[in-house]
Amino acid sequence: MDKINQIKISKGMKVNELVKGMKYTAFNAGKLSIAVDILEEMIKDKDCRVFFGQAGALVPGGMQDVINEFLRNKWVDVFVCTGATLTHDLVEGLGFPHLKLEDGFDDNKLNEQGYDRVYNSLMQNKAYSALEDFFNKNWDGLSKAGNIREFLTLLGGISPKGTILRTAYENKIPVFCPALADSGIGLMIWGRKAAGRKISIDAFDDMKEIIDIAWTAKKNGVFYVGGGVPKNFIQQAMQFGKPASYGVQVTTDNAEFGGSSGAPLQEGISWGKMQADARFVDVNCDATIAVPLILAGLKDRL
Amino acid sequence: MDKINQIKISKGMKVNELVKGMKYTAFNAGKLSIAVDILEEMIKDKDCRVFFGQAGALVPGGMQDVINEFLRNKWVDVFVCTGATLTHDLVEGLGFPHLKLEDGFDDNKLNEQGYDRVYNSLMQNKAYSALEDFFNKNWDGLSKAGNIREFLTLLGGISPKGTILRTAYENKIPVFCPALADSGIGLMIWGRKAAGRKISIDAFDDMKEIIDIAWTAKKNGVFYVGGGVPKNFIQQAMQFGKPASYGVQVTTDNAEFGGSSGAPLQEGISWGKMQADARFVDVNCDATIAVPLILAGLKDRL
Amino acid sequence: MDKINQIKISKGMKVNELVKGMKYTAFNAGKLSIAVDILEEMIKDKDCRVFFGQAGALVPGGMQDVINEFLRNKWVDVFVCTGATLTHDLVEGLGFPHLKLEDGFDDNKLNEQGYDRVYNSLMQNKAYSALEDFFNKNWDGLSKAGNIREFLTLLGGISPKGTILRTAYENKIPVFCPALADSGIGLMIWGRKAAGRKISIDAFDDMKEIIDIAWTAKKNGVFYVGGGVPKNFIQQAMQFGKPASYGVQVTTDNAEFGGSSGAPLQEGISWGKMQADARFVDVNCDATIAVPLILAGLKDRL
Amino acid sequence: MDKINQIKISKGMKVNELVKGMKYTAFNAGKLSIAVDILEEMIKDKDCRVFFGQAGALVPGGMQDVINEFLRNKWVDVFVCTGATLTHDLVEGLGFPHLKLEDGFDDNKLNEQGYDRVYNSLMQNKAYSALEDFFNKNWDGLSKAGNIREFLTLLGGISPKGTILRTAYENKIPVFCPALADSGIGLMIWGRKAAGRKISIDAFDDMKEIIDIAWTAKKNGVFYVGGGVPKNFIQQAMQFGKPASYGVQVTTDNAEFGGSSGAPLQEGISWGKMQADARFVDVNCDATIAVPLILAGLKDRL
Repeated sequence: MDKINQIKISKGMKVNELVKGMKYTAFNAGKLSIAVDILEEMIKDKDCRVFFGQAGALVPGGMQDVINEFLRNKWVDVFVCTGATLTHDLVEGLGFPHLKLEDGFDDNKLNEQGYDRVYNSLMQNKAYSALEDFFNKNWDGLSKAGNIREFLTLLGGISPKGTILRTAYENKIPVFCPALADSGIGLMIWGRKAAGRKISIDAFDDMKEIIDIAWTAKKNGVFYVGGGVPKNFIQQAMQFGKPASYGVQVTTDNAEFGGSSGAPLQEGISWGKMQADARFVDVNCDATIAVPLILAGLKDRL
Repeated sequence: MDKINQIKISKGMKVNELVKGMKYTAFNAGKLSIAVDILEEMIKDKDCRVFFGQAGALVPGGMQDVINEFLRNKWVDVFVCTGATLTHDLVEGLGFPHLKLEDGFDDNKLNEQGYDRVYNSLMQNKAYSALEDFFNKNWDGLSKAGNIREFLTLLGGISPKGTILRTAYENKIPVFCPALADSGIGLMIWGRKAAGRKISIDAFDDMKEIIDIAWTAKKNGVFYVGGGVPKNFIQQAMQFGKPASYGVQVTTDNAEFGGSSGAPLQEGISWGKMQADARFVDVNCDATIAVPLILAGLKDRL
Repeated sequence: MDKINQIKISKGMKVNELVKGMKYTAFNAGKLSIAVDILEEMIKDKDCRVFFGQAGALVPGGMQDVINEFLRNKWVDVFVCTGATLTHDLVEGLGFPHLKLEDGFDDNKLNEQGYDRVYNSLMQNKAYSALEDFFNKNWDGLSKAGNIREFLTLLGGISPKGTILRTAYENKIPVFCPALADSGIGLMIWGRKAAGRKISIDAFDDMKEIIDIAWTAKKNGVFYVGGGVPKNFIQQAMQFGKPASYGVQVTTDNAEFGGSSGAPLQEGISWGKMQADARFVDVNCDATIAVPLILAGLKDRL
Repeated sequence: MDKINQIKISKGMKVNELVKGMKYTAFNAGKLSIAVDILEEMIKDKDCRVFFGQAGALVPGGMQDVINEFLRNKWVDVFVCTGATLTHDLVEGLGFPHLKLEDGFDDNKLNEQGYDRVYNSLMQNKAYSALEDFFNKNWDGLSKAGNIREFLTLLGGISPKGTILRTAYENKIPVFCPALADSGIGLMIWGRKAAGRKISIDAFDDMKEIIDIAWTAKKNGVFYVGGGVPKNFIQQAMQFGKPASYGVQVTTDNAEFGGSSGAPLQEGISWGKMQADARFVDVNCDATIAVPLILAGLKDRL
């Protein structure tokens, strides 16, 4: 057995040095370090397709460019997220940054002032009008989509520079979002439909695409931040495509409550979602801390 | 201010007595007691439409009939859940009960033996064949659906007695499941489509229905168990329909990580999802403990 | 393997019926049910000495009499807790009930008004004067104690009826509190000492007593609510006395952060604190919900 | 209001740059960044006495030198911790490093092989013999102590270089440990006493010292990692000495269960433990991740 490393911190230390030093520490620091090792290995493995699933308010949290880096560097082959992430992303892109809440707030006053609270981050309510304008103006092009992935590719092509949607588009990374209806972008689609504008998006068509990507890969790797539908949707593709050979999960949920978001990657072996001999690790940490650390480690190594 | 009640426990005590006795205790016992009061009030309020959103593996957890009771007693007007819940529900109905895991398991062996693990509950893998048969046999009827809610109504009509799907159908309670693609039932639809059988389900059509239900209500009430897409989808209907006047949330997630599942109901006031003067409470407790307690309390009162 | 029980809730259901019905459910409901079974067995086992360790603000939470029941029924042989619990207990006994916080509070105003906040429960600051009077009046008797356990026995003998301290005294159950210095009662001792009144309490003398109790038992059983020093101090007695044959733990902490409070009982096997063939279970639930349920179950069975 | 910063991660990024970049992010990344700012300010404030309270298995986690750095740089004036930390510390110092657990362990086998498990870190059981030898050899010097702080100062003077105990001694930082009886070192004291060797350590004598340090300070600052008795003991010194002007807390516990470990620093205002206008922040993160980040930030700034 290895000795636990009583980690030394030095002046001017680089993030990658810190992450490497954590390798033989215990608890979540050790897991975080191993997460970077596994991600490094899965990204370098030319035979491996990397599926990145993300839930939680990472864009209001300040992590838009952190996600972009995974796409921009083509470290991932497939991106799956919530509708909320794409809405927050587009709202930032349209010029409505999220704002950092100060102490002493009152939700009723925030409502009157037009701020929508996500813990200590605020969305500006007036962004909805900008979304309306954006979708009105661009509807004809978008309405050609037949499934959600296609819709998001078309949307990515016209999204502002710097958005996740645009970055994925520019790097030819498909974006899946099974519950897009459950979001501000979904509301935009619903609003146009209600106004009699045509669009026909099949709810089940995407499944074939993502399962085919997993099925035709030599190997698969998964990177989950936050659980939810994005994780579960990728897990399903692993089960019916090909079980993952690598896995990293960052979540603050617990296994023992039985939900998918807190399920350890280990459980996936029973389902055939994870290879029995896969390399994987679960990290229990707020994503706004863990993912920047992981990214900084990877940037120095890749 | 009220005094904290140093609760007395008596021999033969009924659950409802226990729950009432918790009212003036602190922490989550006090919250649980108030949750029952608020649910009682929202169910009794004839002007109020009750939206029940549920995520997490409640059926593998043994809570299928607990959910049914809310539907069977017509305490709720709308039910929103994950595709996993409906799949687990149908699998139970088709004669494949979940099994309780014994100690000393090995996920690789479970995989070889055909068991899919959800913490300490197991799904029997052979249920997938039964699902295949069921959907093959019933496809023609199901394929008439144009949106997910319609599909689930049709599915409810042919589901075995005792399932959530059937109970909702019998009580004319619409079931929404925005991310149905992310589930075993979704896979069944995908499989039929892949085999050339026709179905055309619009991904965004349900939104109009649920928002209309919220819009046309005099008042709305929400009951969330476990967060996820079901909660967020109802919250969206509150925001664009009519803010909730009552709310109860059971979750084990934390507010400070910023995700929707852990967001306190209070946050909804800023969004216009919750009335500023609404009665609401958040309970942090495993749903398999909290929801049976709540139900037993309600059964004695309603 | 057993089937998961889809639990049925009936009108007028007793708590013990509910708890029994949870036995073949999964997640924490199943664990809670097994916890009652194990406690029933360890209490009935005439050869077993039961150690009850408790941390967390259970008295401000309304659980004073819940703890008393375990003592009053002589279900436990040793009680270990924090100094805070004993202080809260005495304060209640001296006529200063905790109060339930209303919404819209301001910690600065609470401070000015003399309320000390414990989440949503308040201690009345004026209780400190009553404590001063109580200890001034009773000092001569108390100061004969040579160790903390003796001090608490003497204190129990003069504490008001209904307190944990008095109930333990009346039932001849020793109370240990290794960190008594870390509490309001500790401050009272410090205050008298500072005023020149004599007392000489050895910090390490109690260890012999508790280890001897564990050492001379045929079997030991442990019941931990909330972790902390009380759990760890009992675990130490198991390790150097005799490993436990039964264990129940109620905690909301997580294993993976490495702290003692979240450590699963299973870990104790490696240390020799728990027998390899012991019956034990960990329940992740707010104690204010779990412990009343456990108690109500036990009252119907014992 | 400030805009949320969509943080940019660069190649070769230093930890301090990362931490600074997190300042205007939301959730726990933002809090971590502010924690470093507050610690920087409290350490630089010549009028401020800094109290560092630590609970949890940080030494088995690989954080011994991380703690040392706070002492070695004289950034803290008082150190309060659990007996477990000091035992783990001394065990490392005596040449028994903790070991990193590999997968596929069995607690019963670990017990037979002499390993004591702390999640995924192992203590070597044979360290107890080394502890026995150490205390036998050094007893005469140690037994002159009259209180726990004195005992730990004497122990620090003879502890191996590189231990927390020794580092605190060398930098004249008093170490308090109210529950020292609850630890391996406590057992060593008990063992000597049982063998008839003399020592007389007063359980309540330390309180005067720590309260006096707080009382005579112009200002106080607190840094809590992990809650427990160390936090509560310092909070008590703030309440009866002088309320803190600065505060940083790293914990993974939740406020709503009512325990001291999860209590937000904000609550301390009601008690008079924290100034109403103090600067403080709570960070919810595994200490093995958060504390190295904080330290690396401080090293670059101080």
